[in-house]
Amino acid sequence: MSNKNLQVTLANRPTGWVQESDFKIVESDIPKPGPSQVLVKNLFLSLDPYMRGRMNAGPSYAANVAIGQVMVGGTAGEVVESNNPNLRPGDLVVGNFGWQQYGVANGADLQKVDAKAVPLSAYLGAVGMPGLTAWWGLIDIGAPKAGETVVVSAAAGAVGSIVGQIAKLKGCRAVGIAGGKEKCELVVKEFGFDACVDYKGGNLAKDLRAEAPKGIDIYFENVGGVVLETVALQLNPFARIPFCGLISQYNEPRPHGLDNLVMLLINRVKLQGFIVSDYMSRSEQARKELAQWVSEGKIKYRETIANGIEDAPRAFIGLLKGENIGKQLVKLF
Amino acid sequence: MSNKNLQVTLANRPTGWVQESDFKIVESDIPKPGPSQVLVKNLFLSLDPYMRGRMNAGPSYAANVAIGQVMVGGTAGEVVESNNPNLRPGDLVVGNFGWQQYGVANGADLQKVDAKAVPLSAYLGAVGMPGLTAWWGLIDIGAPKAGETVVVSAAAGAVGSIVGQIAKLKGCRAVGIAGGKEKCELVVKEFGFDACVDYKGGNLAKDLRAEAPKGIDIYFENVGGVVLETVALQLNPFARIPFCGLISQYNEPRPHGLDNLVMLLINRVKLQGFIVSDYMSRSEQARKELAQWVSEGKIKYRETIANGIEDAPRAFIGLLKGENIGKQLVKLF
Repeated sequence: MSNKNLQVTLANRPTGWVQESDFKIVESDIPKPGPSQVLVKNLFLSLDPYMRGRMNAGPSYAANVAIGQVMVGGTAGEVVESNNPNLRPGDLVVGNFGWQQYGVANGADLQKVDAKAVPLSAYLGAVGMPGLTAWWGLIDIGAPKAGETVVVSAAAGAVGSIVGQIAKLKGCRAVGIAGGKEKCELVVKEFGFDACVDYKGGNLAKDLRAEAPKGIDIYFENVGGVVLETVALQLNPFARIPFCGLISQYNEPRPHGLDNLVMLLINRVKLQGFIVSDYMSRSEQARKELAQWVSEGKIKYRETIANGIEDAPRAFIGLLKGENIGKQLVKLF
Repeated sequence: MSNKNLQVTLANRPTGWVQESDFKIVESDIPKPGPSQVLVKNLFLSLDPYMRGRMNAGPSYAANVAIGQVMVGGTAGEVVESNNPNLRPGDLVVGNFGWQQYGVANGADLQKVDAKAVPLSAYLGAVGMPGLTAWWGLIDIGAPKAGETVVVSAAAGAVGSIVGQIAKLKGCRAVGIAGGKEKCELVVKEFGFDACVDYKGGNLAKDLRAEAPKGIDIYFENVGGVVLETVALQLNPFARIPFCGLISQYNEPRPHGLDNLVMLLINRVKLQGFIVSDYMSRSEQARKELAQWVSEGKIKYRETIANGIEDAPRAFIGLLKGENIGKQLVKLF
């Protein structure tokens, strides 16, 4: 193997839309594992909307990325050198090495995974952080009851596609919202939602009312903006809104929040922000259920895979613009 | 007694601020109680912000008041005629007779109360709907833990003043927000909050940060608008916002919601609308605790009392403008 480690660092803090020039591809030496450490060759990098927040200077729920620092991110890879008795070369691990080809870590920072039951990349998607985000938001905050109507924004995305499938497994009506005919078809035909509304179709309120005729009991929120305003007017009493993202707002200099707040009062709605990392330590059951559902084909997933770390910036910008379908990954080798 | 029943009906649906001309004082005959019914002479009428919503044509959590219909509202009064074996003339009852001097009802619609332990009017305030609103919002949704900081808007009002006192009983730091120096003094000296910030002082963000130096864990929301935006920037992780009113917005043609929604994501905040009537059937413990706290002097309350039903429209407009202190009542006789 080459002895170089390609990395992507943050070059500028974007104002408004992210540009490829906000990133820089740099080459460093492959690090050496210290005592008890392992060297991991990252095979897949996960690209996720939350990374946009880390590029800002402002406050967020986690430290931002410094200028010149390697971008943060989840990775799945293979141990290639080990000074740790618990991990051997060839072991497959999920970690948080960020946007780079190699990394060293203690075993405690890594999750050893079995790529027989489900493919390695799925540990970054349906069985990983996005799957857990769907599981916790829907099950813990949404508390779905059979017969209820669950509406999911970004329904063709890594999180949204899983939310709808879990909603169906729980006996709910699942209605997706996605951008474009192609995505909507996938949401219904591949992911098995009962319906999907194209928010680019120009009739969101009317179309949504047609597909959620009994009103909305749970709105799984990824998006914010106009979609949230529209949904707010169609909520049922005691509706729940788990929300883990506001992707439509991340690149807006002056964010649009929620004008229709009073509808949350009238309908006694619970709106709750959450971040999946808060749940990680108690996610064993969730991981097990997701892995089983995936291996049994009860949960399907799609991946959009960019090739090579040099392509990560472009793919990330595409993700923010909604160009991906399902989980956005970068194949690093 | 006179055989006339003075009533206040809705004359016009207000757009923007309510005017006295939106109401009409009418005179009708005192109704006769039918079988199993009682005739009640209402001694006190409760005026509450939610009534503003009932004056609108739009959707709300309860039916609106029709033009020409008697305004809705809680009342406390005395049974003067009875065809119901469970109630006798002289019994004191709380009911929902609305803005009028007399009403007939079945016993099932009435709550018989004991005016020895706490005064009759308190059953419309600290031990009634506002007290229960404070209790449920803070205890059930807010779930306060000792040492946390609880911020309460409209802190000199019927609900807010009780919220802060319960927060203190639970070992929290209670910080009020109120309009004007006089109210703020009352909030601290009479109601025992640790501090009170005057939102009219022009430095809400700075003043609030000074009084809630460890950040805000619970924000009991009555108000909305600028106060909510300001608080949103000072919330701690996992903060809770029980909200039962947006009084600053009720008279705005285009409501201000919450622009800083993203802060609820970053801090994993729960914002939950609630309406006390949903809790009425399971409020026995809450009523008992409130009555005990009031009778022991652990919860203090204030009343602003208008005289005579003809004065109810003016007093209601004053309530919406924040002119009252504590519970706004109308003494009907």
